[in-house]
Amino acid sequence: MSVRAWHAGRMEQRISLVTLGVSDLSRAFEFYQRLGWHGQEVEGTVFFQTGGIGLILWHQDKLADDAGLEPSSGTGFRGVALAHNVRAKGEVDSIISAAQAAGGTVARTPADTFYGGYAGYFTDPDGHAWEIAYNPGFSIADDGSITIPDFTDS
Amino acid sequence: MSVRAWHAGRMEQRISLVTLGVSDLSRAFEFYQRLGWHGQEVEGTVFFQTGGIGLILWHQDKLADDAGLEPSSGTGFRGVALAHNVRAKGEVDSIISAAQAAGGTVARTPADTFYGGYAGYFTDPDGHAWEIAYNPGFSIADDGSITIPDFTDS
Repeated sequence: MSVRAWHAGRMEQRISLVTLGVSDLSRAFEFYQRLGWHGQEVEGTVFFQTGGIGLILWHQDKLADDAGLEPSSGTGFRGVALAHNVRAKGEVDSIISAAQAAGGTVARTPADTFYGGYAGYFTDPDGHAWEIAYNPGFSIADDGSITIPDFTDS
Repeated sequence: MSVRAWHAGRMEQRISLVTLGVSDLSRAFEFYQRLGWHGQEVEGTVFFQTGGIGLILWHQDKLADDAGLEPSSGTGFRGVALAHNVRAKGEVDSIISAAQAAGGTVARTPADTFYGGYAGYFTDPDGHAWEIAYNPGFSIADDGSITIPDFTDS
């Protein structure tokens, strides 16, 4: 079924953008640039093309205001994690190290996972969590898109 | 440049998965199902294929523990917003209404935006923010992927 098909009251099963609220836009932009990313800064907003979606950096108070929500008073985990799957186990260690060198924090040292993979976590300068994972069960296409397996086959 | 190219210390510019921490997996799964989404529940985790990435629902305490982070003590905005761009202004109203009917909360009533679009926000039962946006400046392909414009052209 094409995702083009749309019916009243339905929402196509896709994400267009992920916006991370940040407290210091330049610091956040520089962090991702140090990881090798290329983005555009326009009027206080940074846009990265990440495959078929966009990753956006925007001041967290502006984002909260735009969303009609109260800025969070809490600290610690934000309740959302991004994952970046890699094609080889060694890339997990390399990227976690690079993220630390770029100003991130290693939240979880890479280790074997229960599903037969290998993964670690870092947080960016604003505390956003990224899992770097080698998961042999999730195929990664040349363009970087991933395919979730049909678990009923296993 | 193919994103396949990878160098030590670099991270390809892509996202594989977005994992939303939830307090009640069934409630969260049912919310997205009411919006028309199809997912797989496997061992306490729900997987949705959303274009070339995956959206995952997992218990927030397990997710925090997996990430090596303290569960958040705060309330309000989580500092991350997902956006779902649509092809026609009318879809913004329809989806926001559908989300409310499905058990979500309207955080921001749809309205015209400064960039010439039209957008509103809802939060899912766990407070995760979704912007539903009609943005004529961001093209949407038939497969749902979006392309961020080259802002230097404008």
